[in-house]
Amino acid sequence: MSRKPIVAELEIDPDTLETYRALLTEEIEASLALEDGVLSLNAVSIRNNPNQIRILEIYADQEAYEAHLRTPHFHQTAHMVTSLTLIEVDPIAMRAKP
Amino acid sequence: MSRKPIVAELEIDPDTLETYRALLTEEIEASLALEDGVLSLNAVSIRNNPNQIRILEIYADQEAYEAHLRTPHFHQTAHMVTSLTLIEVDPIAMRAKP
Repeated sequence: MSRKPIVAELEIDPDTLETYRALLTEEIEASLALEDGVLSLNAVSIRNNPNQIRILEIYADQEAYEAHLRTPHFHQTAHMVTSLTLIEVDPIAMRAKP
Repeated sequence: MSRKPIVAELEIDPDTLETYRALLTEEIEASLALEDGVLSLNAVSIRNNPNQIRILEIYADQEAYEAHLRTPHFHQTAHMVTSLTLIEVDPIAMRAKP
């Protein structure tokens, strides 16, 4: 199976962090429910610096990733993000319990 | 459900990288198969710097994480790792297709 992972490193305006976390959760749930090619989205915050967010995103392929970038729910939180770095990565092994 | 994610950032001796990748894949498959509390292990390499590895590890709880650290397969690749940073993180939203 071809899969396309990407790592997003985000910094969030601390004043909007609680709102951002709620919207990100909704966005992740909507993406999994509505986009066939979104396989997994795992968002975490750094323990002692919670406005630093890391998301490991796994898409079925490059096309699914590009389709995700065009969805409206992807854009609703953009104004709360003070820094965004997308790190191109290649899979080694990606496994989850069924 | 209580879940314990952690992010591992590793640098691998380039001379051992192919062996490391093969052993890491075996180790991930064994962990998912043998450890009830290991929910997901996603290992990727940085596109233009493939000896830089990132692993997002999701355990059922802190106890499952500590049990994983005691397994023999966790230790068989240690001599190939030239740098290891474990980043304590907290879940925001972690979702995967069933």
